[in-house]
Amino acid sequence: MSKQRQQQNFVHQVIGHHPESNPKLTAVKRSGKGIAPVNIALSKYWGKRDEVLNLPMNGSVSISLPGLGTETTIQIAQAGQDSVRLNGKLLEPSNPFVKRLSHFLNPFRTATVFFDVVTTNTVPTAAGLASSASGYAALVLALDDLFAWQLASQQLSLLARLGSGSASRSLFSGFSIWHMGRQADGMDSFAEPIDTPWPGLCVGLVKVDVAQKPISSTLGMQNTVNNCDLYQAWPKQAEKDMAKILQAIQQQDFNLLGQTAEHNALSMHATMMATWPPIVYWQPESVAAMQTVWQLREQGIAVYFTMDAGPNLKLLFPETEKPAIKQAFPELSIIEPFKTKR
Amino acid sequence: MSKQRQQQNFVHQVIGHHPESNPKLTAVKRSGKGIAPVNIALSKYWGKRDEVLNLPMNGSVSISLPGLGTETTIQIAQAGQDSVRLNGKLLEPSNPFVKRLSHFLNPFRTATVFFDVVTTNTVPTAAGLASSASGYAALVLALDDLFAWQLASQQLSLLARLGSGSASRSLFSGFSIWHMGRQADGMDSFAEPIDTPWPGLCVGLVKVDVAQKPISSTLGMQNTVNNCDLYQAWPKQAEKDMAKILQAIQQQDFNLLGQTAEHNALSMHATMMATWPPIVYWQPESVAAMQTVWQLREQGIAVYFTMDAGPNLKLLFPETEKPAIKQAFPELSIIEPFKTKR
Repeated sequence: MSKQRQQQNFVHQVIGHHPESNPKLTAVKRSGKGIAPVNIALSKYWGKRDEVLNLPMNGSVSISLPGLGTETTIQIAQAGQDSVRLNGKLLEPSNPFVKRLSHFLNPFRTATVFFDVVTTNTVPTAAGLASSASGYAALVLALDDLFAWQLASQQLSLLARLGSGSASRSLFSGFSIWHMGRQADGMDSFAEPIDTPWPGLCVGLVKVDVAQKPISSTLGMQNTVNNCDLYQAWPKQAEKDMAKILQAIQQQDFNLLGQTAEHNALSMHATMMATWPPIVYWQPESVAAMQTVWQLREQGIAVYFTMDAGPNLKLLFPETEKPAIKQAFPELSIIEPFKTKR
Repeated sequence: MSKQRQQQNFVHQVIGHHPESNPKLTAVKRSGKGIAPVNIALSKYWGKRDEVLNLPMNGSVSISLPGLGTETTIQIAQAGQDSVRLNGKLLEPSNPFVKRLSHFLNPFRTATVFFDVVTTNTVPTAAGLASSASGYAALVLALDDLFAWQLASQQLSLLARLGSGSASRSLFSGFSIWHMGRQADGMDSFAEPIDTPWPGLCVGLVKVDVAQKPISSTLGMQNTVNNCDLYQAWPKQAEKDMAKILQAIQQQDFNLLGQTAEHNALSMHATMMATWPPIVYWQPESVAAMQTVWQLREQGIAVYFTMDAGPNLKLLFPETEKPAIKQAFPELSIIEPFKTKR
């Protein structure tokens, strides 16, 4: 079966479409709208067991950042091609961002239907956060609105996963867990919210300047899975770390949360570095920021970091440590996931 | 059996000492002298399967750097304690360097015998090279001279290994291979020279300034073995890399040598980073130097790096690339292992 066909079957299975007719693919409103937050994984997703359906090698747990994310509207186009406006700017049809988005939209239309998509990231560029997770989550919500599917969050998560694995976790506020699932059809690999708030928890965004990401995370994880001997031990560690993060959330044990998140992130980066050719997202400033975090911990300050497939650090700390951390990182953007409004 | 007793038995087995008498431990000359080079592992030693006898989890291959190393003389002391003069300076008996050296010397004497050791590193501090390998190799050569054992190089390597694992490889010029061995008594875990010169091969020393090493390599490898899930895949990779390095030497295949050495070093550092607490020897300047190496390679210049348990890079390149590399690293110390005199 072709990749496209496999994805189409998956989508139709989720939305309940019948191949003979397209009742689910008729726009009910003039336009659909969706808003979704970015999320930061506390135990990471790294490596796919199925590249067509975006099925992960391991489960992951994340925290959403309210106020930072993507807002998207979608409508049926009058023109004979998709159009995408990103942050107010109309993109060229040849832009890779447009191509990826059009590809994602294919299972949601027949051959003669095109879409106008207007998408705006409320993530300040300075924050150094990836927006593909919030982007695909917002797009799925916009589709659900346009077609009036009224899908349950589990179904929305399945669809968002197809756009970007981590998008499956961007439909919720607070903590989310993405179950790796076991089925070949991918129907059991979705995220759901963890209903435990942690009011005092803070996330700090340390921005490290970088000209260009050396390699996309999709390609990065593909290379790691194929060309890194150490990776074979990763899925088991990731599952173990996920269990610890869940325990930390239930017990509101900040040190367990921070230690596990930092260890998990460094282990993920370790698998990248041990790949050939090596994948090193770190910049000199990333190492300098880590050293500052470790010096703060030596001084008894409760602070840990996590990092995604990029050079930026995300700090985790309880609100009581805010003054000390602001002093060490004067340019830090601080987010309080359970206090800031969505 | 106590650790001390176990080491004593090992030493006596190597030098052929009989417990009833000490014919092998009678100084034959007034003083003994030894000289040994530092070595850089191309496929690394990381992790011990036996901490008392310094038996490694995996074999390793190195290249010695002629002209950089240690010169040591030893004689029987008149005073009732050991004395150690390092680089012209008499050290305090409480100095950890003296304690480690005295401990190493215990199996080579009876309770009433003490030694005066004068040791000088010909490694410029600016080179950023560890000297324990050349140090223990030179000390063993000095003991062999003092006691006139005339041991074969295999026996000398076994003894040097007891002082510092990598010292087993510092008795030879050119390439050396340290066989991991399989026996519990450690008698088959020694290094020997690889009799293949590579005249055009250059080693460049990139010095990264650092106040203090965050953790000794002994403790670093102990923590990695115990607290790093990814490490379980290391010994197999290390053996595979070693075979590739041997193949590269036999075929004088520079790219295979460089790629394998860089991948192996990054994988070793990956196991450190994936340990909890994390072990990160990298400094911001280490990452900057790596980026320069990768940029040079993108420009088609044949250069790779390796790193030991520290922040410094050691470059590997064929002599034809010298001009380009000197330009990118103006402060580089360049060594030609097969051209420089010992």
